[in-house]
Amino acid sequence: MEFLLKKRDESSGARAGVIKTGRGEIETPVFMPVGTQATVKTLSPKELDEIGARIVLANTYHLYLRPGHALIRELGGLHKFMSWPGSILTDSGGFQVFSLSDLRVVRREGVVFRSHLDGSEHFISPEIAVEIQRALDSDIVMTLDQCVGYPVDLPLARDAMENTLDWAARSKTAWAGLAPPPSRALFGIVQGSTYEQLRRHCAKALVQMDFDGYAVGGLSVGEPKSATSEMTAITLEELPEQKPRYLMGVGFPEDIIQAVSQGVDMFDCVMPTRNARNGTVFTSMGKLVVRNVEYARDLRPLDEECDCYTCKTFSRAYVRHLFQAGELLGPRLATLHSLRFFFRMMGGMRKSILDGRFSNWSREFLEKYESSRQ
Amino acid sequence: MEFLLKKRDESSGARAGVIKTGRGEIETPVFMPVGTQATVKTLSPKELDEIGARIVLANTYHLYLRPGHALIRELGGLHKFMSWPGSILTDSGGFQVFSLSDLRVVRREGVVFRSHLDGSEHFISPEIAVEIQRALDSDIVMTLDQCVGYPVDLPLARDAMENTLDWAARSKTAWAGLAPPPSRALFGIVQGSTYEQLRRHCAKALVQMDFDGYAVGGLSVGEPKSATSEMTAITLEELPEQKPRYLMGVGFPEDIIQAVSQGVDMFDCVMPTRNARNGTVFTSMGKLVVRNVEYARDLRPLDEECDCYTCKTFSRAYVRHLFQAGELLGPRLATLHSLRFFFRMMGGMRKSILDGRFSNWSREFLEKYESSRQ
Repeated sequence: MEFLLKKRDESSGARAGVIKTGRGEIETPVFMPVGTQATVKTLSPKELDEIGARIVLANTYHLYLRPGHALIRELGGLHKFMSWPGSILTDSGGFQVFSLSDLRVVRREGVVFRSHLDGSEHFISPEIAVEIQRALDSDIVMTLDQCVGYPVDLPLARDAMENTLDWAARSKTAWAGLAPPPSRALFGIVQGSTYEQLRRHCAKALVQMDFDGYAVGGLSVGEPKSATSEMTAITLEELPEQKPRYLMGVGFPEDIIQAVSQGVDMFDCVMPTRNARNGTVFTSMGKLVVRNVEYARDLRPLDEECDCYTCKTFSRAYVRHLFQAGELLGPRLATLHSLRFFFRMMGGMRKSILDGRFSNWSREFLEKYESSRQ
Repeated sequence: MEFLLKKRDESSGARAGVIKTGRGEIETPVFMPVGTQATVKTLSPKELDEIGARIVLANTYHLYLRPGHALIRELGGLHKFMSWPGSILTDSGGFQVFSLSDLRVVRREGVVFRSHLDGSEHFISPEIAVEIQRALDSDIVMTLDQCVGYPVDLPLARDAMENTLDWAARSKTAWAGLAPPPSRALFGIVQGSTYEQLRRHCAKALVQMDFDGYAVGGLSVGEPKSATSEMTAITLEELPEQKPRYLMGVGFPEDIIQAVSQGVDMFDCVMPTRNARNGTVFTSMGKLVVRNVEYARDLRPLDEECDCYTCKTFSRAYVRHLFQAGELLGPRLATLHSLRFFFRMMGGMRKSILDGRFSNWSREFLEKYESSRQ
């Protein structure tokens, strides 16, 4: 993996770059749609490509449990399995172990947990997380980290951060020991809750270990937005310019713009796709709850500025009808649109950075986006 | 609407023809996928077009209740509402009133029923059924009929048949009185359960009224297949050669082939799409239950002879995983394939009729189709 920094904004920390993986080029800042179970829910890989996705995120925890990483390896890896020719980033499973499974026991060696599917007991260590992601053949592998909720006491946050650092070092060793040596990338994850000293310590120690990229983890877990922003800023101060920076689990358009202005390059979030499946889509004029009765006779597209198949083809009235009638085409059309909105937003943002007008772009975008509470 | 008979098979009753509507040409024999609520479940209209659909069926009963025919008329008709440029046939609502709703009371004037959605009471007469379908702007309108189950006593079957005839005559009058005069087609429906004399009487009386096409209704409701076939044959004997014949609610590939050999031109059935959503697809080698564990590691497409996106792109192992994981892409990919299978089957059948080798084609098709119980 290579990361080329193309342009740095003069009035903010925003950066435009390119990540090159064995699967192609990814322009940054980038939004990665979430394909938890080897599918971005409701969409085909052809549609993902058409609307501008170049990298998707898949969940190690889910794929390890079902259908199993050994099966995916046997069938030729995750790209072939899901017919996705673009890049894939897999999380380490850490977040899901702490948010989805039961009866977890964290030990220095790793974490014991029960499957949310059938209650069966499993053990994942940093080495096993690397091994699973290797079997999936993902392009960007994340180290296993220990996540904590918010708020959390300093001693607990410190313990989790220290476990995370220990696991990161072991992940690096496991990674280096793989044969043949992987041409993929390994990212470290900064933890430390909302404690500045923990964040700085964790980031510095990870940078010492020299990862291919760095993620800001453990945010977007319930803390105030000011804390998210402050912790992101503090963490980024400790990270090298020449490596990609990934803010995990973020987020809303306004949060992404804020984080890009701070120097973040990569994002993922289930929110646009999950909201879309529930009938709330993103538009250039803000969020739109398409189920609302006010759209029952509305012949306009979801977003009059959008170029996606949904907006070029269907009215709000029809999409609303699909949701009212419980038709699967509704979530599908809404997902297609909301992701296209995110990709167009990221593309506009990147162009504005390259053109030296990111501040103007973000002000104009947000003015319009927040102008009408539809 | 025009119907052109292109070729009649010499060794059977099979016919190849063309139906021309204001929306284009439909080659017959034709299979019409069911788009109950203004959507063929899971698929986009673009996909329907790509896999070869030229006409879809929509359900008057469902659209009358939700979102309402007045709303669809106000928004420009059903084609515009669902963005389907091809032809649309709407049923009269009769079958759904008798199969889905509660507390129906059949009077000579029409039928009173309670909505399956909210229990609200409604009245539909033959005139109202014509009016609703006119509001939807469907290309082929069906007259309101009274359906009965199987088995049913002769007196009840006779009553329902006589009601159906009375309603057909009133539908014709209502149709003729519309201003401006409709350029669409109105089809009559033959009832009579499994009683030869009722079937012949009903068909003859409808032909006297001179409809644009004729449907064989009230079959595929639980009677033995031999009765379906016998009643179809008897009904077809009474129908004119130069009008299209539609066997409602049929069916499985072997049933369609049998009915085509008897002279039926049009079919509809929810079965291929409903089965697909449950993980059972149709292939050239027979039905395939893709959820089965034997496909967990199967890299072959659903059907090695198929040219659809699903078969060109994904393995049985992946489609099985989608169903196991409850992913919406599973039903979508399975539906796309099964409908493409039906369209390819109809196309192959039609070509064989034009080429004078229908009997050979159907024998070969069925030998392969029934050869391996997958």
